[in-house]
Amino acid sequence: MDRVGLVEAARGARPLDLLIRNVQLVNVFTCEIYAADVGLFADRVALVAPAGQEALEAVEIVDGTNKWAVPGFVDTHVHIESTMVTPGPFAEAVVPLGTTTAIIDPHEIANVLGRAGVEYMMAASEGLPLRVYLTVPSCVPAVPGVETAGASFGPEEVAEMLTWPRVVGVAEVMDYPGVIGCAPRMVGIVQAGLDQGVAIQGHSPLVSGRALNAYLAAGNESDHEIKHADEALEKLRLGMLPLLKNSSYGNPIPVIAPALTSLPWAEVALCTDDIEPADLLAQGHMNRVVRTMISQGIPPAVAVRYATLVGARHYNLRDHGAIAPGYLADIVLLSSLEQVVASEVFVSGKLVARGGALIAPLPERTLAVPTESSMRLPELSTDSFVLRGPIQNGTVDMQVMVMDPSRLSYRETMQVPVRDGIVQWETLGDDVCLASIVARHNQGHPPSLVVLRGKGLRHGAMASTISHDSHNLAIIGKDPASMLLAARTLEACGGGIAVVAHGELLTKLALPVAGLMSTQSVPQVAAEIEKLDAAVRSLGIWAERPALALAGLALPVVPFVRLTDLGLVDVESQQLVPLFS
Amino acid sequence: MDRVGLVEAARGARPLDLLIRNVQLVNVFTCEIYAADVGLFADRVALVAPAGQEALEAVEIVDGTNKWAVPGFVDTHVHIESTMVTPGPFAEAVVPLGTTTAIIDPHEIANVLGRAGVEYMMAASEGLPLRVYLTVPSCVPAVPGVETAGASFGPEEVAEMLTWPRVVGVAEVMDYPGVIGCAPRMVGIVQAGLDQGVAIQGHSPLVSGRALNAYLAAGNESDHEIKHADEALEKLRLGMLPLLKNSSYGNPIPVIAPALTSLPWAEVALCTDDIEPADLLAQGHMNRVVRTMISQGIPPAVAVRYATLVGARHYNLRDHGAIAPGYLADIVLLSSLEQVVASEVFVSGKLVARGGALIAPLPERTLAVPTESSMRLPELSTDSFVLRGPIQNGTVDMQVMVMDPSRLSYRETMQVPVRDGIVQWETLGDDVCLASIVARHNQGHPPSLVVLRGKGLRHGAMASTISHDSHNLAIIGKDPASMLLAARTLEACGGGIAVVAHGELLTKLALPVAGLMSTQSVPQVAAEIEKLDAAVRSLGIWAERPALALAGLALPVVPFVRLTDLGLVDVESQQLVPLFS
Repeated sequence: MDRVGLVEAARGARPLDLLIRNVQLVNVFTCEIYAADVGLFADRVALVAPAGQEALEAVEIVDGTNKWAVPGFVDTHVHIESTMVTPGPFAEAVVPLGTTTAIIDPHEIANVLGRAGVEYMMAASEGLPLRVYLTVPSCVPAVPGVETAGASFGPEEVAEMLTWPRVVGVAEVMDYPGVIGCAPRMVGIVQAGLDQGVAIQGHSPLVSGRALNAYLAAGNESDHEIKHADEALEKLRLGMLPLLKNSSYGNPIPVIAPALTSLPWAEVALCTDDIEPADLLAQGHMNRVVRTMISQGIPPAVAVRYATLVGARHYNLRDHGAIAPGYLADIVLLSSLEQVVASEVFVSGKLVARGGALIAPLPERTLAVPTESSMRLPELSTDSFVLRGPIQNGTVDMQVMVMDPSRLSYRETMQVPVRDGIVQWETLGDDVCLASIVARHNQGHPPSLVVLRGKGLRHGAMASTISHDSHNLAIIGKDPASMLLAARTLEACGGGIAVVAHGELLTKLALPVAGLMSTQSVPQVAAEIEKLDAAVRSLGIWAERPALALAGLALPVVPFVRLTDLGLVDVESQQLVPLFS
Repeated sequence: MDRVGLVEAARGARPLDLLIRNVQLVNVFTCEIYAADVGLFADRVALVAPAGQEALEAVEIVDGTNKWAVPGFVDTHVHIESTMVTPGPFAEAVVPLGTTTAIIDPHEIANVLGRAGVEYMMAASEGLPLRVYLTVPSCVPAVPGVETAGASFGPEEVAEMLTWPRVVGVAEVMDYPGVIGCAPRMVGIVQAGLDQGVAIQGHSPLVSGRALNAYLAAGNESDHEIKHADEALEKLRLGMLPLLKNSSYGNPIPVIAPALTSLPWAEVALCTDDIEPADLLAQGHMNRVVRTMISQGIPPAVAVRYATLVGARHYNLRDHGAIAPGYLADIVLLSSLEQVVASEVFVSGKLVARGGALIAPLPERTLAVPTESSMRLPELSTDSFVLRGPIQNGTVDMQVMVMDPSRLSYRETMQVPVRDGIVQWETLGDDVCLASIVARHNQGHPPSLVVLRGKGLRHGAMASTISHDSHNLAIIGKDPASMLLAARTLEACGGGIAVVAHGELLTKLALPVAGLMSTQSVPQVAAEIEKLDAAVRSLGIWAERPALALAGLALPVVPFVRLTDLGLVDVESQQLVPLFS
């Protein structure tokens, strides 16, 4: 960049490129708000002066009257995969809302494609009108031993990726029992971050007292899973940086914010973590988090400070997160401060979005799909989805997985007839179906199977490659043919979500990037999900988010039993449970 | 370090090494003060818990009742050379007062010994009970063109030194006119810091408005030269980090602190910059700065936050500056919070000072003297200090340097007789003497000479190698023989300060390390300076600090004329002025 030009423009030896005149500057250093002129040159802020104080010459002038200028928001922890689109369309959706920097954790794609997935996110986020920095996933796989993922990262892999450009930290260290118990893999991964001197994202929901001290002593620094005011206070006092969020899965800010107002020196940063497409369209992105903070009594300038400078500094991004000379000219003009409504967004000194729409072009390559397929399934046939018993004919005791409306799951022992070696699970009642996890990372082993009760499925089948955290292919169905069709449909389109009824494909959402992301726009994906939701409901499946009804089926950290590609897992003991005893 | 042991001690799987029980914890994250138990393991904090909450087992227990625990102070900008001792004795003096981390700027020794000087400060500060981090001097020489120093650092030298271990930034970029005017050398040096992503210390006294914007746009981040409240506010608003000080040369805190109390979010850090030996003994080190902040209405916990966490974070020292799990166990127990009286100091978890005295040993090597002499003078004789005129006999107009009691200096044209080619300056009155700057960095050219009026010298001579910023040998004298004796005395002892009267050495302070520092202790040096002061006064020399009466004689940034090794300099025009017109 032209640093000499910048200094010359600042001192008045040459014109500014752009002048934002008479705007209400939200000063994130002092948390004051006052009328100012902001001068830009090339990609940076050259000068900030009280409005009208300096005679300023500029190539272009923007009138800031009746608007507020805030630094572009810094999302301190976000999984782009949760938006189900690739970084290009993600930027298209969030930049017009004021998010200009995203510290991403490519945890999901890393569990599918490994290092190639992280590389893809790097490549696909280059040249965007959004600054994307990466944290290196620390938990690939999330739960070693009871499932198999597409990759495995140990300390060496993490250490190597930490040296890549645009990498600013170790991503959420969610295996907190492993950290606290000094599991060698987690000790090594955290040490890699310490050695590199980067930020290390914590993840320690409800961890307290000595366990929390141990987790912090290990080197973890922040937490985006805080749910209670007491928890926030304990963590703040111990030096942890809360990354407060209002995501699609929860909004603890109303509970936590009151604890902050009496502690002006205590700092928090803000993040979005996981936001689904329709929710993003309805409620926004970082702007919603800031809006929530303001609505809970945090002074607007302080909420903006949290959403910008605090996060930038935590990741040692020294020239991000403020409107001041030498800082990157990522500036959002708001038409409403309290509602956080972005009217114009500047990134690197260029107007990139206006009135809620992106006007900067997206580089072609950010929409390319990785050449490597992520649907490396074993050979499948209808027989793959036939549950065989331990005897030829008769009756056996079988473990059945039961889901309840709270999304918890249990296991139940049920007597089931076997005929010609095949379990007659259809005899167990109306609300039973077969659930299967199909290894899709070239592991080669046949699908796992279990009988599932309480999910509501009345006919047909549903399949999804969004299946945390290993993202093997999850299927539930009433008959082998429907299950096979759902699997084959997703295999053909590179992954996604499919619904089959009456022997035919009802609808599908193709997610060709790792079976997790679409290259379509967020509104397009949201519209497809609306159709999917209807189709899923038409099968009788109950779920808060029907399209994602299978996303947690295989997640072996949610109580009390889950089905992974390796079989039925007892979550508390972290042991595989045989179906037949 | 034993990270696993630390985590185990935190969670209770093994005993703590040390427990500080029931201490008033000054929490620098929340700025609360409350009773806590602090557990250490190896060199770090393992655990912090509300007093009595946890049953804690420890090898050693310290009762903290009626004491406050604060993190060791982080001095964000300090020239050890100003204390006139090497890093070892410096640590011996400041650690017992609570300073446990020093971000040093070896500006003075670098101007004498160049890179070898910086290397010396690195080596001499290794293994101390004080964490010493370096910033790379940016202005060697300080003022190119009108003086010659012992070295010259350009962008390449600075960039290389920035990669050394324990180097955390670019030292005070004091050539602010060069930065604002985009002088290629300064542009390159600041860019080296930007490229390395380290802190860049500013230095911009009274710079304001567009010039200040330009200075910041160039990349400078902090300022330890702020003198007024308005100046502090303008700089804070523009994102500059004030490093407030109470040094031997000034204490702007009473003027600035009131501006801070209404802006809790505005952050400042603290530093000492320059503190002389006797002043250090009388008033303290970082503890005096904190005490001054508290006395000016800053809440004690906030003053401590400024003195610790804020500075540590600015230099990206992620595990310094707080008492919290995972942080380095640099802890000061205070017997008085308001007066900031350290009773015990722990560094890396070890008790290193108690009751104001260091108990940790100093490594031998920290007292070694560099083998390279810094007294590389030209051939000298009495003739070197004889001022020759442009004619053989008669009268000429001559520029005379005049000092006034405000320490400013002027030039005056005076008529002076010349006899046999020699200027008869003794005829100009009682209060005149000869001043000379002798190049001591092997430059080879003969001493510069000028007639000096108003300094008060009645007989004899004084010489000093502390002579900012190039630290050539400064001498004033009434006769060539006294001046030669003073020079030869310092040449023989490796530099220092010498006073000659009646043809004999009256007293001297040997500063064998670069002619700037002694390996004696601070009290020893302070005692010698007291003797020096008396000797200097006995010659009639007036000066606020008699021993340092010559320290500014050659500094060509102080209005209006100065004498460098190259001759008489007009400060405003930065031009050399011929003595005879």
